Amino acid sequence: MTDVGIDAAEIWTGKLKLDLAETFAPEKGDDPGKYTKGLGLYESSFPDTYEDIVTMGANACKRLMERNDLEPDDIGRIDVATESSFDNSKPISTYIAGCLEQTFDGDFHHANKGERKFACVAGTQAIDDAYNWIRAGRNRGRAAIVVATDTALYARGDPGEATQGAGAVAMLISEDPSLVTLSDEQGYGSADETDFLKPNQQFPSVDGKRSVQVYLARMREAVEDYESVAGEIHPDDFVYAPFHTPFPGMVRKAALLAYRHITRDTEIEEALAEQIGMQPRETEFDGEEAFLDAVSDYTDELKETTRYQEWYEATIDPTLDIARHVGNWYTGSVHVARLAALKRAHEAGREMTDERLFVASYGSGAQAEVHHETVQPGWKDEIAQLNIDEQIDARYDLDFAEYETVHDAHDHSKDRDYEEFTAPDAEFVFDGWGRMGERKYRYVE
Amino acid sequence: MTDVGIDAAEIWTGKLKLDLAETFAPEKGDDPGKYTKGLGLYESSFPDTYEDIVTMGANACKRLMERNDLEPDDIGRIDVATESSFDNSKPISTYIAGCLEQTFDGDFHHANKGERKFACVAGTQAIDDAYNWIRAGRNRGRAAIVVATDTALYARGDPGEATQGAGAVAMLISEDPSLVTLSDEQGYGSADETDFLKPNQQFPSVDGKRSVQVYLARMREAVEDYESVAGEIHPDDFVYAPFHTPFPGMVRKAALLAYRHITRDTEIEEALAEQIGMQPRETEFDGEEAFLDAVSDYTDELKETTRYQEWYEATIDPTLDIARHVGNWYTGSVHVARLAALKRAHEAGREMTDERLFVASYGSGAQAEVHHETVQPGWKDEIAQLNIDEQIDARYDLDFAEYETVHDAHDHSKDRDYEEFTAPDAEFVFDGWGRMGERKYRYVE
Repeated sequence: MTDVGIDAAEIWTGKLKLDLAETFAPEKGDDPGKYTKGLGLYESSFPDTYEDIVTMGANACKRLMERNDLEPDDIGRIDVATESSFDNSKPISTYIAGCLEQTFDGDFHHANKGERKFACVAGTQAIDDAYNWIRAGRNRGRAAIVVATDTALYARGDPGEATQGAGAVAMLISEDPSLVTLSDEQGYGSADETDFLKPNQQFPSVDGKRSVQVYLARMREAVEDYESVAGEIHPDDFVYAPFHTPFPGMVRKAALLAYRHITRDTEIEEALAEQIGMQPRETEFDGEEAFLDAVSDYTDELKETTRYQEWYEATIDPTLDIARHVGNWYTGSVHVARLAALKRAHEAGREMTDERLFVASYGSGAQAEVHHETVQPGWKDEIAQLNIDEQIDARYDLDFAEYETVHDAHDHSKDRDYEEFTAPDAEFVFDGWGRMGERKYRYVE
Repeated sequence: MTDVGIDAAEIWTGKLKLDLAETFAPEKGDDPGKYTKGLGLYESSFPDTYEDIVTMGANACKRLMERNDLEPDDIGRIDVATESSFDNSKPISTYIAGCLEQTFDGDFHHANKGERKFACVAGTQAIDDAYNWIRAGRNRGRAAIVVATDTALYARGDPGEATQGAGAVAMLISEDPSLVTLSDEQGYGSADETDFLKPNQQFPSVDGKRSVQVYLARMREAVEDYESVAGEIHPDDFVYAPFHTPFPGMVRKAALLAYRHITRDTEIEEALAEQIGMQPRETEFDGEEAFLDAVSDYTDELKETTRYQEWYEATIDPTLDIARHVGNWYTGSVHVARLAALKRAHEAGREMTDERLFVASYGSGAQAEVHHETVQPGWKDEIAQLNIDEQIDARYDLDFAEYETVHDAHDHSKDRDYEEFTAPDAEFVFDGWGRMGERKYRYVE
């Protein structure tokens, strides 16, 4: 059976930066620690006025194709995942292909283009569709491009305003991939939830408290579903666990619950018992409330143990290295987390070939998906080519008034022109509206 | 290799009817023939005020599951294709699953739910995703449900107003299907086009003339792509050819061009040559214009031949039986065409097992996809269970003022309440808005 997975990946960040501690917190009258420690976020990326989900996606794809010597004919499928679309009928993948056809010889006329929507989990769903297409033997030797691209903006003053972000991840899905193979086994946890939605509106309606609960509940279901087909998970099975990262603080909560779950009935639970006792079992309690209180107490103590903290530092913390500096990228978020972990391994000189990742995606509304991935021998060469650190460092640092302008520039209800803050250089840019209300793009040398 | 395809299908029409000849034409001061002969449309379906893409989709799914004795646990995937979504983040499949969980025991918590958008071609893309998922061996014995659901409404006074429609098609995708298997071979014709789009708006911007050209151009590319992998197509290969049907007149144009293409270099071209000459070849002409003129003349004459007309009556006309009475259903349209053809065969007592269909889907923006399907032994029992004729006959016949009210009721910019025209009976209905702007649903006994 052919191995299928992610052969290459590119990250493209919006070219502007909002510093949460230095710029956002003072304006809001907040302690910077509310953001840097509470949310775990230092900065957010924003798109300049000539950037949007199409330009960020197309620019990521261009670099991905160029450094892999790909021509349009090598690509049989382009799928875009986004929850920031600006058209209810025409998919963003057609715009991105149109951009790429401006700079590559040939065209994508025989490639299947599409768009998937399910909050932040759609990027993972699009990878799965591409994976299944190759496994079904319908790819005619061609690879697929999956682009997860979003401008994660909230209404001004919304509690989510501190977790904004903007960027794209482009991934090449192919046979015998260089980066990771994907497991056939998957776990799903999915329910009709009203935690976060955008009913006929650009900016989300969010029930923040419910959203955290739903993330954890669906993730737990997904892990149980995964275990029903792949067997019980043990912490030693995985070197890293990239989670969907709306903000690093959310992942801290999820990781703690996950660790409690996967150490139950293991030698780790027993070793920890000397310090914090065994995990509470429901049968030992008279009522659900007493049981949940005991679980809560156990979890609080677990968090303080050296063993848990070492696991968290090794397995989870590296996945947050990029998110801390770019904010929430919605569909791209979990894919940024995967790359951040591999980047940390590369920087540490760690050998990762044949090591496993446990990847946990989530979309509000709500659905979690988990699966595992196996790192391939080409991973190091691939990760070495990422230039996300340079991109992050090169961002223009917005003051608060400039941030307000940028937010307005991307607000669909405000149809005005704004000056750009950076100069485009060898990239696709937004070039105004066409006669039918369509967005137009051009390549700037 | 396991055969995979469509096991069962259900059609659910909006419960209101606009008669184009009797009601629409007089109000517009038009000859009824403009609609019945020109567009080939007699009536359009509209959703009553308590119907929308969720209720129509959920009602189709409920019937599909009940008559196939399916429980939620039998379903591993629910994908919705639509270009009428009312949320930029939460997929319609979650709402539909939420409806079904009100009436079925069990839940869909381990099913992968999603939403695909690419104008009218997304339903076919969702079927492909499900097909590939099963072929990739990831379905754990479960089937997938694909729902194509749309309210195809245009701004009042738009030329597209006569081609409106509303309805849903629910399809069960499984191993060893009862209805049709799908070919691995597919052809794609896809380009970045601005023929029809909905930039941050509910009702489409349409360039009608361009839209027809693009439909034909992309379809031709798709057929050529298909032939490159499956070999040349001959008219005898297929009993029926269901096309995407924005209106039957469009399919008349597409069928004529397709016939010219697939009869080239065949004994049919030679037999027709006595009457209308051989097809013009580009090398025989000095310039492109002269060649295109000759092609146009040949096509006009081809259309009048008995041989073409007999082929059209046998192969294409049956696919339009339902569309004529319900209008454009966008993502559902080509799937209605497939079922209409099989229904005609069933009514004629024709044996269809092992016969082939050539299925041609299209979405503006733009992309065509073609493949073939092979009819399975269970087709007759399956088709016999369709009750679309009864549904069509039972629709409430709107007068023009009532039509205006219904259009307003579904206009997202008009937030008012309207009386319903029909009484819901054993079905899901829209039940008002929730606190976060979400649409709510309930089952009416």
